[in-house]
Amino acid sequence: MEAASFVTFGQYLRPNFYFLLLIFLQNGPPIVEGVWPLPQTFTSSIERYPLSPEAFYFEYGSQSAAQQGCSVLDGAFMRYFPLLFPDYTGNGVLRLYGDKPFHLVVTVDRDDCESYPHEDSSERYNLSVSARQASLNAETVWGALRGLETFSQLVYQDDFGSYFVNKTDIADFPRFQFRGILLDTSRHYLPVQTILQTLDAMAYSKFNVFHWHIVDDPSFPYQSRTYPDLSSKGAFHPMTHIYTQSDVRRVISHARLWGIRVLPEFDSPGHTKSWGKGQSDLLTPCYKGSSLSGTFGPVNPILPSTYQFMATLFKEVSLVFPDSHIHLGGDEVNFSCWSSNPDVRAFMKKMGFGVDFTKLEAFYMENIVNITSALNKTAIVWQDVFDYHERIPKDTVLHIWKGNPASYKAELSRMTKAGMKVLLAAPWYINHISYGQDWREYYNVQPLDFPGTEEQKKLVIGGEVCMWGEYVDATNLTPRLWPRASAAAERLWSDEKQTSSVDKAFPRFQDFRCKLVRRGIRAEPLYVGHCKHEYQGR
Amino acid sequence: MEAASFVTFGQYLRPNFYFLLLIFLQNGPPIVEGVWPLPQTFTSSIERYPLSPEAFYFEYGSQSAAQQGCSVLDGAFMRYFPLLFPDYTGNGVLRLYGDKPFHLVVTVDRDDCESYPHEDSSERYNLSVSARQASLNAETVWGALRGLETFSQLVYQDDFGSYFVNKTDIADFPRFQFRGILLDTSRHYLPVQTILQTLDAMAYSKFNVFHWHIVDDPSFPYQSRTYPDLSSKGAFHPMTHIYTQSDVRRVISHARLWGIRVLPEFDSPGHTKSWGKGQSDLLTPCYKGSSLSGTFGPVNPILPSTYQFMATLFKEVSLVFPDSHIHLGGDEVNFSCWSSNPDVRAFMKKMGFGVDFTKLEAFYMENIVNITSALNKTAIVWQDVFDYHERIPKDTVLHIWKGNPASYKAELSRMTKAGMKVLLAAPWYINHISYGQDWREYYNVQPLDFPGTEEQKKLVIGGEVCMWGEYVDATNLTPRLWPRASAAAERLWSDEKQTSSVDKAFPRFQDFRCKLVRRGIRAEPLYVGHCKHEYQGR
Repeated sequence: MEAASFVTFGQYLRPNFYFLLLIFLQNGPPIVEGVWPLPQTFTSSIERYPLSPEAFYFEYGSQSAAQQGCSVLDGAFMRYFPLLFPDYTGNGVLRLYGDKPFHLVVTVDRDDCESYPHEDSSERYNLSVSARQASLNAETVWGALRGLETFSQLVYQDDFGSYFVNKTDIADFPRFQFRGILLDTSRHYLPVQTILQTLDAMAYSKFNVFHWHIVDDPSFPYQSRTYPDLSSKGAFHPMTHIYTQSDVRRVISHARLWGIRVLPEFDSPGHTKSWGKGQSDLLTPCYKGSSLSGTFGPVNPILPSTYQFMATLFKEVSLVFPDSHIHLGGDEVNFSCWSSNPDVRAFMKKMGFGVDFTKLEAFYMENIVNITSALNKTAIVWQDVFDYHERIPKDTVLHIWKGNPASYKAELSRMTKAGMKVLLAAPWYINHISYGQDWREYYNVQPLDFPGTEEQKKLVIGGEVCMWGEYVDATNLTPRLWPRASAAAERLWSDEKQTSSVDKAFPRFQDFRCKLVRRGIRAEPLYVGHCKHEYQGR
Repeated sequence: MEAASFVTFGQYLRPNFYFLLLIFLQNGPPIVEGVWPLPQTFTSSIERYPLSPEAFYFEYGSQSAAQQGCSVLDGAFMRYFPLLFPDYTGNGVLRLYGDKPFHLVVTVDRDDCESYPHEDSSERYNLSVSARQASLNAETVWGALRGLETFSQLVYQDDFGSYFVNKTDIADFPRFQFRGILLDTSRHYLPVQTILQTLDAMAYSKFNVFHWHIVDDPSFPYQSRTYPDLSSKGAFHPMTHIYTQSDVRRVISHARLWGIRVLPEFDSPGHTKSWGKGQSDLLTPCYKGSSLSGTFGPVNPILPSTYQFMATLFKEVSLVFPDSHIHLGGDEVNFSCWSSNPDVRAFMKKMGFGVDFTKLEAFYMENIVNITSALNKTAIVWQDVFDYHERIPKDTVLHIWKGNPASYKAELSRMTKAGMKVLLAAPWYINHISYGQDWREYYNVQPLDFPGTEEQKKLVIGGEVCMWGEYVDATNLTPRLWPRASAAAERLWSDEKQTSSVDKAFPRFQDFRCKLVRRGIRAEPLYVGHCKHEYQGR
C-alpha cells in the first residue's frame, strides 16, 4: 500500500479518468493504463498491491453456484494464470515464502458451467480489488469470464518485473448483446489453429459471437456427414482444405470456453458455386438464348429436390451447431441466370410473379426460413432479404451490410420501424484496408444515431466486424484484424458518452494493443512508437 | 525421362512460355510454374527427372575458382538443401539405394568467397539442367547464389510428394544493378530476427541491397561506439530497443551470405530529433520571437562542432558498414526553425545566402558529402538535395522518392541530363496500402520510360521498394512486404518486353507466393484461392 487518495471516474467524473491516465503515463509507475473496452463504471485509486505468481489463488466463493469442476471457470483460471504473470516460468524454485497471498474470489449466481452462451446470457459482472483479495461476482459464468479479462488487464509490471494491481471497483455490463466477428473460410481456407487463436483474441476484446461464413462460391470446406461430396468436390482440396466434424466441434468447444457463440452461415441462394460441384441439379442451369450455356447460377428455386436437400443439410447443421441462431445469407443474388432459364420463367408465370425476380428470391428465402424454423432455429439474413420482401417472420434478425452512414441509417430506421431486430455490420467491413489510422472511423460509429423511437433503438441487437477473405488468409489475418476490430469492440460494449473521444481513447488503445502483443497476438501498431515487449518470433 | 519434345521460350518465343504454363496448370503434373523473377532466357521441356534428397549432391566444378571451404557457397548449399526438399526429415533411415544420384555442379570464375558484394558485382549465371546433373556457371559467387535460387524454384513435388526438375536451360542476368528494399527501424524497432528473415525473403526475389534507414526522428537505435548516448538517450529503450555492434555485424554477415549489400542511412540535417537527446548542441534551437522556444529543429549547420561530430560519427559508420556507399538523407528539411534563429540568420548573411535557406541546406550537405568522400564512401542522397543544389559531386547517387509518374519521370530526365546517377523509389512506396491488387501498379512501372537519351537511361542504376515504419513493425512487416515487393523485384531484374503483361504474370506470381509460404514466409495472398501447403502456425 503506497498511497490512499481516491479518484472516482467513469460514469460521473469522466474527465478525471483521462487526466489520471496521462499523469501516470508521464510520471512513470504506478501505471494504470486502463481497460479495453472501457467498463461502464470504474473507480480506481493509486493505491497498489503487489502480486506474486507463487502466492496468487483463483477461488470459488463459498456462495457460488459454480464450484471446482466447472469446466468454463476451471479452464479460464488455467488460461489466465500465464496471462497475468507472463514472465513466470512456473518451476516454483524461486518461491519467496514472504509473499503475501492474494485471492481472486469468483462467485456466480447460476451453475451454467456446461451450457453454451446464448443470445440472452447475462455478461454483467462486478469486480472489487482490495488488499490481498479481489471479488468477482456475476450472474453467469459468462459474466465471470468478462470480469476475469478485466482483472487481467488491471495487472501490470514495473520496470523490475514485479506485478501489481491497483485498488479498483468496477460494475460492468455490455451495451449490446451481440458483438460479433465474421471470418470467411471459403475465399481462403483458414487452418483450425488460426480460428482458435482468433477466438482467444476475441475474448480479450469481449467479443461474444464468431460468425462463421464457412462456405461460399470459391470453396465448400465444411465436411458434411450427409453430403460428403460437397467438400470432397467443392473444397479447394478434399483432404487438407476442409473442416471435419471434429474440427468443427473443436472450434465450438474452444469458443464456449471463452463465452463465445458460434453462428454458422450457409449462404444461399447466391454465393453457392462451390455447392454445385458436389450436388447435381442444385444450381440453376443458365441459358444462352435457347440452349444451355454450360454455366450455373444461384440455387434452383423451382425444384422440390432443392428444398429436400436443404431440409436435410440444415437438419445436420442444426445438430452440429448448438446455437439458437443460424445465418441463411440471402445476399447479392444475380437474377440474370434465373431469367435466362425457360423453366424458371414458366414457374414465375405459374406463381404470378410476373418478371419480378425479387419475388422469386423472397419465395425461396421463405421456404428456407420455414425449414430452419421447424428445426427451432432463429434465422439471420442479410439486408437484401428485407429489401425484397418486407413480410418475413418477426423473429428473423436482419443484417445490414450495405453502404455509407446515410444509407445504413435509413435502413436501420426502416427495419426497426417494421419491428424487426437488426444487426449492424456496414461500418465495420475491416477487410477494406487503407493507409493510416482507419480504426478511428470504426470507433466513431454511433449505432443508435438514426431516426426512430426508443422502442426502435432497442431492436438493434448489436454489431459485427466483417473480415471477408478475398485478400486474407492465415498469413495476414491477425494483423489485419487486431487491433482494428477492437475499436468496434469498445463501441459495442462501452457507454457511448464515456467513449466519445477517439483522441482520448488513443493512448489506452495503444496500451491495449501492446497487451495483445504481449499475449502473442500479432496485433499491428496504431502509429509510431513501441511496446515494452515487442513481438518476437518470425 | 518421360517425354522429349522441346519448347523454347524466353527472349525469342515469348508467347509460348505462357501457353505452356497454362497447359501444365490445367492438365496436372508435370507442373512447371516458372521462376520469379523471370530469367532473361529460359528454355524448358516437359522432360522431367526425379530428384531424391538422399541422392542429391551439391558439387564444386573442377574448374571452379571457389572450392569447398568457400563460406558463401558452402553456406548456400546448406540453406538450399531444405528449401529443395521441404518434406525431408533428414534421418536418412529410409534411404532408397536404387535412387540415382543427381549432381548440381557449381563453377565460378573468381574466388570472391570472403568478399562483400558491391555495386559492380556480376550476378550473371547460366544454368543447364539435364539428366542426373545440373551445371551452374557464374563469374562470381553472387551470380552462383542467384542461380541456386532459380534452381530451387525449378524443383517441384507431385501429388505423392516425389521431387522433380525439368530439363531446362537458362542464361540470366539482372536488368538493373541496384534492387533494394528499405526498412525503417526508427519509427518502430524491428527485432534482429525480423531483419534476418527479411534478408532471406529478399534473396528469394533476387533483391540485392538492404537499405537500412536505421535512425530518424522517433528513435536512434544504433548503438554507437563513439557516441553511446545517442542510443542510450535516443532509442525507445536503451537496452531492449537498440542494435548493438554485434547485432549490426550479424545483419551484415547474414546479408553477405545472400549476396545482399547493406546500405546504412544516417539521414540529416532533418529527421534527427532523436539525435538531439544524446548529443547536446547538435540541433538548432528554435526561437519564438526573440526568445528560445525550448524546441529544436534540424541539425545546426552553422557550428564547427556539428561537423566535428559528424566526421567522428561517419568515420565509425564507415568502418562498421563495409559497403562503398552510404546514404546521407537530406530530405524534408523544415526551414522554419532555422529562420527563427538569429544566429542562423546572421550566418546566412555572412555567407551571402540572403534568405534562401535551400542554400544553407546545400552548404550543409556539401560539408557532409565531403566528410564521407574523404572516408572513401560514395554518397546517396534523397532528391531534395539535387532540387536545391544542382552542383553536387558527380558520383553522388540521387534517390527519387516524390510524386506521381509525371513528376518522377520529369525528375529522372532532369537528373540524368545533369549526368547524375539515379535510383528510383517513388513508385514503390509500398507502406502505402490500399484495398485490392495494388501489386499490379508496382509491376507496371516502366523505370526507363522518360524523355532522355540512351546515355541518360544508363544512369538509372535501379530501384528501391520502401517500407516506411509509421504503421509497421514485427507484427505486420512480412505480409505487407511480401509478395508485393516481389512485383518490383521482377520489374528490376527481368526483361521488360517479356514481362509486359501483368495478367500473364499473375498465375506465376501466385505460384511464387505459395513458394514463399512454403518456405515459412508469411506472404499474403494475391486474391481468392489456395496454396497446396497453407501457412501453418500462429
